[in-house]
Amino acid sequence: MAMQLTRAGEYAVKSLLYLASQSAEARTMASEVAAAEQIPVNFVRKILESLAKTGLVKSYRGAGGGFTLGRAPEQISMRQVIEAVEGPLALNQCLLPIPCAKAPDCPLCPVWQEAQQAVETVLERYSLADVVGKR
Amino acid sequence: MAMQLTRAGEYAVKSLLYLASQSAEARTMASEVAAAEQIPVNFVRKILESLAKTGLVKSYRGAGGGFTLGRAPEQISMRQVIEAVEGPLALNQCLLPIPCAKAPDCPLCPVWQEAQQAVETVLERYSLADVVGKR
Repeated sequence: MAMQLTRAGEYAVKSLLYLASQSAEARTMASEVAAAEQIPVNFVRKILESLAKTGLVKSYRGAGGGFTLGRAPEQISMRQVIEAVEGPLALNQCLLPIPCAKAPDCPLCPVWQEAQQAVETVLERYSLADVVGKR
Repeated sequence: MAMQLTRAGEYAVKSLLYLASQSAEARTMASEVAAAEQIPVNFVRKILESLAKTGLVKSYRGAGGGFTLGRAPEQISMRQVIEAVEGPLALNQCLLPIPCAKAPDCPLCPVWQEAQQAVETVLERYSLADVVGKR
């Protein structure tokens, strides 16, 4: 099944895990994240600026500027990071916010729905702090 | 997250659900499946011939020929159908049979692994008979 993170999703997860591994006050440059996680720096900057709009990241401009997490790494779930970049999880198009043409009679929707909720439950259970702690 | 069935996977599921809704002995033509499920007939034929190689489907040629399920619909899980067409489930490339470059130190692998197993568990729990019964 095609159930992979997009590249943007993967880079967002890695970038925020890197920020989570830094001290809470440290303002980290996009170039540092890029070097540590082997991600093109322009991609890192674009993702972090985008996440700054969601509150998951804080962006500080000018001299001494950089990025920090928007709140404690214990309070940011893997699900929040992935959905901030990729939108709501959807195993099948019939699970997008707009119901599929067959709903509510579609016999498959309840199966996808249950599979999706299972993934959401797992990704919600892990915070950035949990994952950084495994390193 | 990009976690959608491929079109081939979706068509395989729908085609086998249609066969599961027929009597066990009925040999169903690809054209009948195609009309009922609104799938291009060439696509149906290709998928069913391909699934015949896995044993999920039986193909009978010649006059009176057609397709049946390879075993009872209670004994074919959604997971088996999807994996027969799409290969093993993989939420992230690091879950493909070949480990990612970072394994076993990759902190993300255990999270993806757990999410993947959650999906597998759901899809394995539902047989074709379960889903047809919901119609």
